[in-house]
Amino acid sequence: MRAVVLAAGWGQRLRPGGDRAKILHPLLGLTFLDRVILTAKEAGVTEFVLVTGHLGEEVEAYAGDGSRWGVQVTCVRNEAWEGGNGTSVLAARPHVDNAPFLVLMGDHMFDPVVLRSLLAARLDPPVVAVDTHLDVIPDLEEAMKVRLDGDRVGAIGRELADFDAVDCGIFLFDGSVFPVLEETTAAGQGELSAAVAALAERASLRAWRIPATWWFDLDTPEMVARAEKALLRNLGKKEDGPVARFLNRPVSVRISRRVVNWPLTANHWSLLSFSVAVTGSLFLAVGPLVGFIVGGLLAQLASILDGVDGEVARLRHAASPRGGWFDAVLDRYADLALMLGLAIGAWRVSGDPLLWPALVLAVTGAMMVSYTSARYEGAGLGPSPVGGLPAKRDSRILILMVGAILVAPLVTLVLLAILSHGEALRRLVVWPRAQRGNS
Amino acid sequence: MRAVVLAAGWGQRLRPGGDRAKILHPLLGLTFLDRVILTAKEAGVTEFVLVTGHLGEEVEAYAGDGSRWGVQVTCVRNEAWEGGNGTSVLAARPHVDNAPFLVLMGDHMFDPVVLRSLLAARLDPPVVAVDTHLDVIPDLEEAMKVRLDGDRVGAIGRELADFDAVDCGIFLFDGSVFPVLEETTAAGQGELSAAVAALAERASLRAWRIPATWWFDLDTPEMVARAEKALLRNLGKKEDGPVARFLNRPVSVRISRRVVNWPLTANHWSLLSFSVAVTGSLFLAVGPLVGFIVGGLLAQLASILDGVDGEVARLRHAASPRGGWFDAVLDRYADLALMLGLAIGAWRVSGDPLLWPALVLAVTGAMMVSYTSARYEGAGLGPSPVGGLPAKRDSRILILMVGAILVAPLVTLVLLAILSHGEALRRLVVWPRAQRGNS
Repeated sequence: MRAVVLAAGWGQRLRPGGDRAKILHPLLGLTFLDRVILTAKEAGVTEFVLVTGHLGEEVEAYAGDGSRWGVQVTCVRNEAWEGGNGTSVLAARPHVDNAPFLVLMGDHMFDPVVLRSLLAARLDPPVVAVDTHLDVIPDLEEAMKVRLDGDRVGAIGRELADFDAVDCGIFLFDGSVFPVLEETTAAGQGELSAAVAALAERASLRAWRIPATWWFDLDTPEMVARAEKALLRNLGKKEDGPVARFLNRPVSVRISRRVVNWPLTANHWSLLSFSVAVTGSLFLAVGPLVGFIVGGLLAQLASILDGVDGEVARLRHAASPRGGWFDAVLDRYADLALMLGLAIGAWRVSGDPLLWPALVLAVTGAMMVSYTSARYEGAGLGPSPVGGLPAKRDSRILILMVGAILVAPLVTLVLLAILSHGEALRRLVVWPRAQRGNS
Repeated sequence: MRAVVLAAGWGQRLRPGGDRAKILHPLLGLTFLDRVILTAKEAGVTEFVLVTGHLGEEVEAYAGDGSRWGVQVTCVRNEAWEGGNGTSVLAARPHVDNAPFLVLMGDHMFDPVVLRSLLAARLDPPVVAVDTHLDVIPDLEEAMKVRLDGDRVGAIGRELADFDAVDCGIFLFDGSVFPVLEETTAAGQGELSAAVAALAERASLRAWRIPATWWFDLDTPEMVARAEKALLRNLGKKEDGPVARFLNRPVSVRISRRVVNWPLTANHWSLLSFSVAVTGSLFLAVGPLVGFIVGGLLAQLASILDGVDGEVARLRHAASPRGGWFDAVLDRYADLALMLGLAIGAWRVSGDPLLWPALVLAVTGAMMVSYTSARYEGAGLGPSPVGGLPAKRDSRILILMVGAILVAPLVTLVLLAILSHGEALRRLVVWPRAQRGNS
């Protein structure tokens, strides 16, 4: 699938000076252009026609041949960009064949699921993606309104009084759109919306309803702020435990927001979180009271930082199964180090021989909770079922921190052993009977 | 896809008395009929037409409506079965529509890959599967020989002098085969091979070469013995370590062969292996010398029995991801019990405090070897790469047995810790760079 990305406009409401291309405006570690290209790439688009205009040289130099994104990009300069974005679609004409192609606005941002669903629906062009969730549309006045007639567009226009949806700026066209664009442009209407309205008048424009999710027309600083919020709000994972959800994630998202521009990869953050945990384990091994307090707090800090690697990767569209594996294996070693540190610190003070069997059971329990889940997914049984005892990593580390600060190492290890082996045994009984896809 | 299974013949070379239907002859826990149906089911066939004749009532009572195999079976009695197996194909006519259907011999057994590959090739009927690996065909004299003409059958016949392949008894037909069968039957030639020869004469019969693998026409006790050997030889897994391959597997296969008929499921065998390991760990906890020897031997026996569950499941076409998961989780607990037992047994004698950290590291190392692999597959990165230190379960348990018998518990635990953590750390460095599909 090929996509034409419109990146010719000035964007004067966002960058009144027009000093730098709007499309290269940064948003949480990536430019607008990065986001639209990488989102489309995730949906399976591999070839792009990038239509430039205002500050075209800057945009073209940034995009190059697309290898920075691992896709193929052809840049086309639209000298007539001030005539409206319809002229930019026309400028792409020599670079698309008769097969269906997408038209995307370079300054729109949307949940990747939108494009994936649209392409999966395999509709015949012309199609416009519309959002019927009118109550959550910001800036409804500025939006291009759409009246639906079944699955067709009945009417479209900014001034429409009676409407059911708004146009999301995502189109599926084929070569038949160009004659219409030529007509409307020749009639002095250079905006794509004029051609879209002409298609709607002929009752030939299919309206495709997007799922209930976020998308933004990044036209003003306020919309950019809203988009940033939406991206950050969606950084959590559905398998997050309660401690991760309500304590760690809110903090780690604030950190990720600040550090996403730093020249550190997600794997660097995994290593950093691991280092903090190992440092914490050394403090724990020193023993109470200061060692236990500092060690416990560092353990919890490591648990919070453990969210940053994945968040940075997702914000940059750079999440990978290998990165997730690397982080997970480091986490197991961090768990081992922390519990071993706690046991050594306590042993130095009390010499209590019960600490050792408690440590063996606590550390193997932690690993079994992770193993049962990883092996389940490795067997192709789908995402591991949710629910159960508070024995996942977020809960275990919080318990360890509290136990260390309260100087109750043996009780802490026994509690961790009971919770984690209890959960592993629960899974051994329940999961073989679990139904697929109940996550 | 629908399959017609020919199950009408007497099979007098295998059962000279004709006292029980040949098709219900047992072979490693399943009857011939079970095997042909379950093999086809694995390739995606869900509807079967079973043509019975000799001892038809017995076969029909056994097959029922197919629910015993989770498929749909329609039984058709061919009263004229003594007229040749072509008449059995004709008897199935009212139960197949014009779509392509398979014809399988109820007394042939073949590697499931054969049917999967044939159906994946999506050829137009009529097709006959042929084997060109003539040097490994047993009983070549009795086989139906095929001379190839490109991808067509040039000539076919038992007495053919100049031939390139033999007919495997697997056909893909559609409704157009019936008129040919009627012709040849009317001409007094009731065997399917006569119709096949007629199709070949018209140069319209496609020959599809099967991959290099095993298949058997279970005509004589000797062929049944050969088929049994082939099934047993293929029970190993490609991820088996060296100890599994050369020590455990040869023994476990002999056990599986004997117990496959017992009314125990694969999960029962997983639990039995686990119980033997736990019993071994109790003996180990008693301490040297008798406890260590008995415990060590029981550990190795458990390791051998650990192969039986999967072998029994595979022999019965009953292997499942859930069963594999259940076995894997029990194995981790058996590992924990055995190493804990060894450490307790040694501790009771020596009181050496180094035993505890050695135990912690040995037991976590064992889990990390399993975890890194499970998590890798869970991340969708494909089968985990092979190679590395001898730290998989088969090697670890052998080391534990030898160490226990030599009464060297601390050295054993330290060696296990070094090998397993060494392997886990090797993976942490090497695997993120591993290429996909290099297993």
